[in-house]
Amino acid sequence: MKLVIAVVQDKDSNKLAQNLVKADIRATKLASTGGFLHAGNTTFMIGTDDEMVDEVMQIIQQSCKAREQVVTPMSPMGASMESYIPHPVNVQVGGATIFVLDVEQFAQF
Amino acid sequence: MKLVIAVVQDKDSNKLAQNLVKADIRATKLASTGGFLHAGNTTFMIGTDDEMVDEVMQIIQQSCKAREQVVTPMSPMGASMESYIPHPVNVQVGGATIFVLDVEQFAQF
Amino acid sequence: MKLVIAVVQDKDSNKLAQNLVKADIRATKLASTGGFLHAGNTTFMIGTDDEMVDEVMQIIQQSCKAREQVVTPMSPMGASMESYIPHPVNVQVGGATIFVLDVEQFAQF
Ligand code: NI
Ligand code: NI
Ligand code: NI
Repeated sequence: MKLVIAVVQDKDSNKLAQNLVKADIRATKLASTGGFLHAGNTTFMIGTDDEMVDEVMQIIQQSCKAREQVVTPMSPMGASMESYIPHPVNVQVGGATIFVLDVEQFAQF
Repeated sequence: MKLVIAVVQDKDSNKLAQNLVKADIRATKLASTGGFLHAGNTTFMIGTDDEMVDEVMQIIQQSCKAREQVVTPMSPMGASMESYIPHPVNVQVGGATIFVLDVEQFAQF
Repeated sequence: MKLVIAVVQDKDSNKLAQNLVKADIRATKLASTGGFLHAGNTTFMIGTDDEMVDEVMQIIQQSCKAREQVVTPMSPMGASMESYIPHPVNVQVGGATIFVLDVEQFAQF
């Protein structure tokens, strides 16, 4: 038995939750406070058999992999609307940090 | 030293907290977001000596064991009040999922 | 790789977060619900290389060590203002409870 702890961005949280349900993998979500290093995180705790860890890792990767997104920024504060020419920029979204811990004992009542 | 992580239903959370206090066992509660798999959970982190793990497990079981509860459902939406005959149903409440992890190092400042 | 789980008082949480950032150590904050044993806690999860655990422990200690603070209590409810003579008292603030767990597998996507 392993405990997989995955920290993912809020925006990927629903997709990950749905994909875990589809794969019949049980999980618990912990609220991460608006953070300093990882603002807008959700932490998943996933208990899983040893031989399912790879599948869980794949589901997390498919749901949350870091990727670039094209964003067209709003007019910057103070810039006159006339002089502002919006141009799209790439920002990185997504990503997951995963820790796999060994579970010595597991119980359900 | 072990770290016991217990995911319990919100409705059992206060009872478990009180029973841990009574047994002089220290714990920390983590907020679980309204979840997909375990809506309305609370996650307890309980640090405990190796020889106390069984007692902690028993306290969790006594506080949170899955059980049936008789509920009389409200009139279903759209049913006319005349034709609705309420009858009690059994629903399962409670339950706990518990992971025991080994703690390599423990400190308090 | 280790996972350091540190439960600290809310009032030390910002200082710890800043000191971790300064040391370039990544962390995630979990919201602790208003608790029974540790009201107003924040739980930090810090993934770190084995050889950095001591430094992480030192940063936590420097940021959160239990200490006395002199507080002058407000007039107690119901006491007449004339008869109330405020005198400062020492209260203990701060403190941290730290668990170091071994990480079997670590991944970032
Ligand atoms: Ni991270
Ligand atoms: Ni569960
Ligand atoms: Ni504590």
